[in-house]
Amino acid sequence: MEYLGESIIQIGESEALARALSVLKSAESTLVGSGDDAAVITLTDPRVVITTDTMVENHDFRNSWSSGFDLGFKAVMTNAADLVAMGATPRALTVALIISRETKQAWLEDFARGLQAACDQFSPSIEVVGGDLALGSEIVIAVTAHGDLDGAAPVLRSTARPGDLVVVAGTLGKAAAGLALLDFADPTAAASYPELVNVQLRPTPDFALGLLVAKSATAMMDISDGLSLDATRLARQSNVSIRLEKRLLEGYAAVLEQAAQSINSRSGDQNASEWDWVLHGGEDHSFLATLPEGSVMPRGAKIVGKVVASSEHPVYLDVEPLAARGWDSVTG
Amino acid sequence: MEYLGESIIQIGESEALARALSVLKSAESTLVGSGDDAAVITLTDPRVVITTDTMVENHDFRNSWSSGFDLGFKAVMTNAADLVAMGATPRALTVALIISRETKQAWLEDFARGLQAACDQFSPSIEVVGGDLALGSEIVIAVTAHGDLDGAAPVLRSTARPGDLVVVAGTLGKAAAGLALLDFADPTAAASYPELVNVQLRPTPDFALGLLVAKSATAMMDISDGLSLDATRLARQSNVSIRLEKRLLEGYAAVLEQAAQSINSRSGDQNASEWDWVLHGGEDHSFLATLPEGSVMPRGAKIVGKVVASSEHPVYLDVEPLAARGWDSVTG
Repeated sequence: MEYLGESIIQIGESEALARALSVLKSAESTLVGSGDDAAVITLTDPRVVITTDTMVENHDFRNSWSSGFDLGFKAVMTNAADLVAMGATPRALTVALIISRETKQAWLEDFARGLQAACDQFSPSIEVVGGDLALGSEIVIAVTAHGDLDGAAPVLRSTARPGDLVVVAGTLGKAAAGLALLDFADPTAAASYPELVNVQLRPTPDFALGLLVAKSATAMMDISDGLSLDATRLARQSNVSIRLEKRLLEGYAAVLEQAAQSINSRSGDQNASEWDWVLHGGEDHSFLATLPEGSVMPRGAKIVGKVVASSEHPVYLDVEPLAARGWDSVTG
Repeated sequence: MEYLGESIIQIGESEALARALSVLKSAESTLVGSGDDAAVITLTDPRVVITTDTMVENHDFRNSWSSGFDLGFKAVMTNAADLVAMGATPRALTVALIISRETKQAWLEDFARGLQAACDQFSPSIEVVGGDLALGSEIVIAVTAHGDLDGAAPVLRSTARPGDLVVVAGTLGKAAAGLALLDFADPTAAASYPELVNVQLRPTPDFALGLLVAKSATAMMDISDGLSLDATRLARQSNVSIRLEKRLLEGYAAVLEQAAQSINSRSGDQNASEWDWVLHGGEDHSFLATLPEGSVMPRGAKIVGKVVASSEHPVYLDVEPLAARGWDSVTG
């Protein structure tokens, strides 16, 4: 995405921030917003759920693919997903933003609009209560999000029990398919599958469903690094094994098959695989939960396997071990 | 500071983090620490005070001056000062850290030791409850800190009243003097004034004094960008003017005079000025507060002027307007 006009450094921090902040709204739970040493928010109980996540230019995103709006939107959504995965309702966030000498003011305002649009997905809307803007050699977005348990116990990763059902709430593999499409040399590939590209650039996890599943979950987490890696983490932390059933995952693969074939037929090789995306692709920010056997599934939540006693491998796909092949944010 | 041995990227995120996290301790107020989607802390009341601040390599610090320990320590202290300036007791923080391909594992572990050493300055110790480690082209440290008001009202910047005393709790100009000494070509200059260099590299604001002053303050803020700029902000937000008295600031200048003369005599010019450091130098992270006339000053807090009705300029030094000459983190 190209942005024109003045760069932020030409305008100066105070003025640039004032213009960007005018895009953001205040929310009810905020006693003191930006403009003081710190913000003050009010929750319904004295426990605060806190998570933080960063996005780095050319490592986690490319400016040629993502607009400022996309990045602001995604930064809120990825952090909010971590809160919902604990059973907490997002309430407020802070944004530390590093911009480069080249970053345009128009980008910053578009970024702020993306933050606000994501905050407005929640009802009542959540708020950016504080932030920091500084100069560096590339864009870095660090969001810290705060959630409210509303009296409930937090849902951990370490409390799945043998016999529990393994449940996915949300899509699997769409964000990875979107990334493969964006990465493909021929841009008409991406243009043909706007929904998949959208899940990659501007994810909208089903938070209402996530919070509903959390109410009866024995354990839960956000699938940010891919099913195989995140299921491995949940299994290890709970000291159990997870048996996924391939037939129960077929629906996720089926909707991606055409996109994979499209890439393969244009490239002449067979590198794109809908099953790789479903099993190992990250960034859908769907929820992986375990629920007691016999639980009634909320609409949209899908049983994909079963928790069993800890065995030789943490995760199996039918009878075969499923190796964790996810994303390490340092080694890539 | 030189670090030897393996780089973080050679080791990989999980292993590098595990080794660094082993340096950090848990605190009582933490229900769920790192290792899940989010952390959960418990405060004494449902209001949460939140602040965030970033430090960027070659913009906010240089690796040749600051060790990993120094940076971890300073990152905690600068954020904690913002909480104390609201009258809140620091309780927990998250750390988002961007490292470069060159960053060594030994640096990361030293950084973690600095975080912990700063957390241990508080009683009971505060805790790093979450974080994120990612790769970029330079080191970026983004800390978000969380504080507890323990039933009190937050102390804002916008509530100073004409007639109030203007009070400083802590040092003024020492961090700026330390920076000038570090920046001076001859390294024996810095070596001669270790206390001043220490305030720059490893600030230790008097938080107990800050919290005591906050109890009777009508308004308060952390002096991070220099007295002239921060007093201007407080005056503007409170819609008052501030009259500083030069004779009341002389003690701050006196202790810096020798360092300024030392730089000037070695360089042969007169660029170093103790009064510039006192009036415009940032990063001491002392507290600027306004207190009702006739207040008893806690030991260590010093009256430096008076709040008057809003006048032509926000801040005066005796009868002259004092221009804000502080730090803009984008334009420098």
